[in-house]
Amino acid sequence: MNTSRFNVAIVGATGVVGRELLSLLEKRNFPIDTLKCFASPLSVGQKLPYNGTLVEIQALDLSAFDDVDIAFFCAGSAISRQYIPQLLEKDLCIIDSSSLYRKDPSVPLVVPEINGHLITASTKLVSSPNCTTSIMLMPLFPLHKEFKIKRIQVATYQAASGGGAKLMSHLIQETQGVLSQDERKTSFLPFPYAFNLYLHNTKHDEEGYSEEENKVLFETRKILNDDTLEISATCVRVPVLRAHSEAIFVEFHEKVSKEKAYTLLRNTPGVKVVEDYSSLTFPMPSLAEGQEDVLCGRIREDRFSPYALNLWVVGDQLLKGAALNSVQIAETFAKQKQGGTYDEKQKTLYIAHR
Amino acid sequence: MNTSRFNVAIVGATGVVGRELLSLLEKRNFPIDTLKCFASPLSVGQKLPYNGTLVEIQALDLSAFDDVDIAFFCAGSAISRQYIPQLLEKDLCIIDSSSLYRKDPSVPLVVPEINGHLITASTKLVSSPNCTTSIMLMPLFPLHKEFKIKRIQVATYQAASGGGAKLMSHLIQETQGVLSQDERKTSFLPFPYAFNLYLHNTKHDEEGYSEEENKVLFETRKILNDDTLEISATCVRVPVLRAHSEAIFVEFHEKVSKEKAYTLLRNTPGVKVVEDYSSLTFPMPSLAEGQEDVLCGRIREDRFSPYALNLWVVGDQLLKGAALNSVQIAETFAKQKQGGTYDEKQKTLYIAHR
Repeated sequence: MNTSRFNVAIVGATGVVGRELLSLLEKRNFPIDTLKCFASPLSVGQKLPYNGTLVEIQALDLSAFDDVDIAFFCAGSAISRQYIPQLLEKDLCIIDSSSLYRKDPSVPLVVPEINGHLITASTKLVSSPNCTTSIMLMPLFPLHKEFKIKRIQVATYQAASGGGAKLMSHLIQETQGVLSQDERKTSFLPFPYAFNLYLHNTKHDEEGYSEEENKVLFETRKILNDDTLEISATCVRVPVLRAHSEAIFVEFHEKVSKEKAYTLLRNTPGVKVVEDYSSLTFPMPSLAEGQEDVLCGRIREDRFSPYALNLWVVGDQLLKGAALNSVQIAETFAKQKQGGTYDEKQKTLYIAHR
Repeated sequence: MNTSRFNVAIVGATGVVGRELLSLLEKRNFPIDTLKCFASPLSVGQKLPYNGTLVEIQALDLSAFDDVDIAFFCAGSAISRQYIPQLLEKDLCIIDSSSLYRKDPSVPLVVPEINGHLITASTKLVSSPNCTTSIMLMPLFPLHKEFKIKRIQVATYQAASGGGAKLMSHLIQETQGVLSQDERKTSFLPFPYAFNLYLHNTKHDEEGYSEEENKVLFETRKILNDDTLEISATCVRVPVLRAHSEAIFVEFHEKVSKEKAYTLLRNTPGVKVVEDYSSLTFPMPSLAEGQEDVLCGRIREDRFSPYALNLWVVGDQLLKGAALNSVQIAETFAKQKQGGTYDEKQKTLYIAHR
């Protein structure tokens, strides 16, 4: 493997996350030698713009990975399940954004700002977390390091993009239909989405929690490396296009102070405090869309517990919630490959809070 | 005062709540003798349909209340402040849906299913609660009676109707503008509402809580008659037209059981459990709009506390959140005036939980 520039592949390149990946690799000037884009047979032959050139979509084929150094998988769990196991024998690093390996104890689940030290020059597979979890943990991690989290209670306001390009188009088309009184129903959802909202429509376990809600629990515990964390989520889809919002109540083991929390968050790379009480402007999807930073604000000390805070977080689902986090994982791997060392201070802080 | 039929007045009759009031009085066959409708000078002379006739809008004038038995005020705090104090000398019952008297200890704040016994035949002024609070308490009250609430953590998904007809029109018009790429901005809000959401834009106190969030705390304590209740809210406006949704975490003093909670809620008038796990259909605005019942479902026992439940509640903001509750207050008063007695069992249960 050449370690100054890398041969990169994107599986699911025509999807909404795949397109953001391409755009971020270009924007962040990722050291690419060759770039291959894979998608479903229907898209083969299409061309995607990258850095002033056009990259032709190829059919997915294991032999095409022989010279690939870094492969992004963002085509869903079924495609990951079909191809990744066979690719693990090859000399490449796979970054999977599906949920397939997230619970696998042998596969690191990484938000680079939090546990990027788990990635080494010999890492072969890294899982990128669920969007709700990565967005939530960006502001919670610095608070966790300082006060140690005991419990999280979160209610989400999730955007259409989490359901892919199809759900985004569906929302727009259905809204157009409702406004023009031409209510032709598409069969995409069994209930309205325009001017409506619904509980996240994944399967539910016996206790009544949805898969999405369980992901927040299990992935947070794995990323923060703490199986004692108590987390309850209620996950909701709202008619917003591409940024997730989250109302978070968080209880710590130590006493908290709002001022200290603000200071920590204002000094956390990847987090931006957005608050203007005079114009009542706080984090909202319209401000977070297209932003790499996760926005947070309205930190309130709980009136009944000196150990708890309420806060409000909004992040672009397609960026920190998906493509950006995967690109940051690739950047961390590339740096390791190039002989870089992970910030020891960050690692020590992380480990100290296990 | 004639006690078989009543002379009724509506102040703010052309507003979105006023129109629902008219419709409910007709639908529920409220015993009306005469009906007067008041609104701002701009609307004087307009006619509103009621029970097959047309009622002409009059200018607001104190002398017009001489023969009024029951007056609904739904024109905002400023109008309530200007007229109600002078009307208190007259022999009529005023039902105020503004926030003006909600904190006044001498004025009952009533959700009839919960504390309707506070209304007697001599009641002169009753305050109707904030929409978020009345919708939330409908399913929480039967649980409170059984398990006694210690703490509530609520995140809201509030509809445009809470901001009146103007905000509803603004949402529709702005959405039309965005979809037709004709993004003419109205100056109604300093940020987008179409495909966006924002923290409830009322004033904030020094601790950072908004007025709306504080209403949930203070009004819940007053209605449940318990100043020890711990309540934290995060109030959010979503692009939905007329039903509020709420993600509620509630901790009790006694151990809870999901089965018992379901049994209680299925037997609570005014509450409807909506759950179909096979089609993933749960309470949502599209199902709650136009419904008098508050919908609830997805009751989950908290994984980390045998004393806590998570639940999901959706109610029509203009009905149980506003007009319906006011009409129910009027019905309670009318029943008292007609010599009815309040259900003693309900009253006893309420008092037992002070």
